[in-house]
Amino acid sequence: MNVTFSGFSGATAFALPEIPTTERLEAFISATDFEEPTLVVDRQLVAAQYAALAHGLGNATIHYAMKANPAREIMETLRDLGSGFDAASRGEIEQCLALGIPASRISFGNTIKRARDIAFAHQAGVTLFAADAEEELEKIAAHAPGAQVYIRLLVGATEADWPLSRKFGCAPERALELLDRANALGLDSLGLSFHVGSQTRRADMWVETLDRVAAVWAKAHRAGHALRMINIGGGFPVDYGDGAEAPGTYAAEVMRMVRARFGDQVEVMAEPGRGLVGAAGIIAAEVVLASRKSDSDLCRWVYLDIGKFSGLAETEDEAIRYEITTERDHEALGPCILAGPSCDSVDVLYEKRPVMLPLGLQAGDKVMIHATGAYTSTYASVGFNGFPPLAVVVI
Amino acid sequence: MNVTFSGFSGATAFALPEIPTTERLEAFISATDFEEPTLVVDRQLVAAQYAALAHGLGNATIHYAMKANPAREIMETLRDLGSGFDAASRGEIEQCLALGIPASRISFGNTIKRARDIAFAHQAGVTLFAADAEEELEKIAAHAPGAQVYIRLLVGATEADWPLSRKFGCAPERALELLDRANALGLDSLGLSFHVGSQTRRADMWVETLDRVAAVWAKAHRAGHALRMINIGGGFPVDYGDGAEAPGTYAAEVMRMVRARFGDQVEVMAEPGRGLVGAAGIIAAEVVLASRKSDSDLCRWVYLDIGKFSGLAETEDEAIRYEITTERDHEALGPCILAGPSCDSVDVLYEKRPVMLPLGLQAGDKVMIHATGAYTSTYASVGFNGFPPLAVVVI
Repeated sequence: MNVTFSGFSGATAFALPEIPTTERLEAFISATDFEEPTLVVDRQLVAAQYAALAHGLGNATIHYAMKANPAREIMETLRDLGSGFDAASRGEIEQCLALGIPASRISFGNTIKRARDIAFAHQAGVTLFAADAEEELEKIAAHAPGAQVYIRLLVGATEADWPLSRKFGCAPERALELLDRANALGLDSLGLSFHVGSQTRRADMWVETLDRVAAVWAKAHRAGHALRMINIGGGFPVDYGDGAEAPGTYAAEVMRMVRARFGDQVEVMAEPGRGLVGAAGIIAAEVVLASRKSDSDLCRWVYLDIGKFSGLAETEDEAIRYEITTERDHEALGPCILAGPSCDSVDVLYEKRPVMLPLGLQAGDKVMIHATGAYTSTYASVGFNGFPPLAVVVI
Repeated sequence: MNVTFSGFSGATAFALPEIPTTERLEAFISATDFEEPTLVVDRQLVAAQYAALAHGLGNATIHYAMKANPAREIMETLRDLGSGFDAASRGEIEQCLALGIPASRISFGNTIKRARDIAFAHQAGVTLFAADAEEELEKIAAHAPGAQVYIRLLVGATEADWPLSRKFGCAPERALELLDRANALGLDSLGLSFHVGSQTRRADMWVETLDRVAAVWAKAHRAGHALRMINIGGGFPVDYGDGAEAPGTYAAEVMRMVRARFGDQVEVMAEPGRGLVGAAGIIAAEVVLASRKSDSDLCRWVYLDIGKFSGLAETEDEAIRYEITTERDHEALGPCILAGPSCDSVDVLYEKRPVMLPLGLQAGDKVMIHATGAYTSTYASVGFNGFPPLAVVVI
């Protein structure tokens, strides 16, 4: 059996390439004056990350989780490399189509879709949809009759750095009911999906989740559902200096575990977002103020021209800790609390665990915030406090 | 002594008006089909809130914290009523100027300002600046020589619903040093500022903060600083159905306490944001999915077309609980977990304390999210998950 589920032939397996360094990015930033905080992305790094993941994932198809960073040049780079795309909304589907990406390469992966957006996707030729509830299947059957669907499972907590809540997925014991319901509605129940949680640093963290999904898979087969696709979602990590594994070997290890549980014949679909573009970008920012609030304070406060509302939303609860470098890193370092420029008091980036930065840092100094290619530019507010959204430059 | 500190004559004291109901807003929303979630603001309500606050605040000047909602029609309404404006950035100052608001009515109230933005404000004629650090005073002296400054104090935690952290303000024991430094730099040290914390529901919650600031004030006077302005910041609440006091009486009680501590001659400046426009807006949204994730779940999940990343950021930690009404509110109610439409698992609005909504609620139903005129539209992300920013309509 070798069913290509949506006419899309999947990623090309490249020879495992060397991933270039961020030298070119850093040189560009050092040589450029920025009026506002700016995310600079290197498209060569995007291509290299794609090649490394594609190599590790073998014959799985990659659907880029474009919500991570839908910058046009990134989308074009991945389009030209043969990637598929995981879209979260009508807006994202429209963007794909405008870039000439065929509908057969687009998956409408959000389990929460407006009826009119399902109808739009169907009309545009998208045939692959996610669901985790009867009510969603009914909407899909009504507005995209005969569509291919996969059922998203709710799997337990993992060790991911940005774990997913109970928001998505049905309980494993409901999966069979939903597969039955999909069939009764005339839909094509292709398989199952799950998500281990964003920024899952080591491949071995997938074991428990994969075991749970495999149990549901086996049960479905015993009940007569000839499932033929497993969507392993995202979770592919970025190295934030915290020992995340390298993309190619990580992906290969995940695939080895997937094949061991689901067999060699089943179609595998992966949705890397952060793992594909996170390491390909650096934010160029600027120190606005460095001060001490009280004589008894152990820490300085360093305020940047970028904060939680202008691109660094993932610092919430200090979940993601970006590496920060400056042009004074050869000078003496000391701890500081790092905050954004807005008048909102929650706009503090790192306070529980202060950041070591040069003691001589002062207003006007340039800083680089590393591995910020994913989940930054689109998280930025439209104009909170009158600050413009994060600018993006692709080199 | 009756020094008008920046040539701006302050708010007109109106007779305390009746604040109109939201009937007109609700009728408009009921009669309108919205393609996307939309904040609808009633400019009559903005004007009535302004009149009520101006009445309560007496001869204090109102500087609208425009970051709460800088929609053009709101700004024009307040401009025409004689309001001043508290700007957080160059972008906000530019917006004021474009609307014909004189620079004398604008305060650059952010304590974290880029040197080039200070220079811009100075060039444009803005003379009033906030500071909480020597380094900031030095920037102001260099780029806006001779400017009027007020020193922001860091005052302790309050009972506010959206309390401010240690991000802003100097420790009280440093205030005198900063006033001295400002004078030495040739700046005009006008006075002090503080913030009790956003959404401080009752006027009596101000007592402790006012006492602390008054102690610094007295000490500064003893040290020879003839301070002549106290900026009481914001904190004016909105009634989210949680028993916040009415704006006019609340403001009058705050002013009574301020006058008791700082005297009748001192200039008072207030910066309401939420308290001015929060109650003047309702978001029209739509149910995208209502489902149950597991047979054992006690709660349904209700997913709206708006969430944390598209306008409802203040639901973070369930800090602000908006009232939600539907067209089925006469039907039987039951608890639900409320979530947004994005593929981000943190995009859950209320889960710790579920919301009571009609059991019959289903995809496509219209919902109204009340008292959402402040801190919604500008918090919205520029396009996370491909969803457009929150639309705003002013009637």
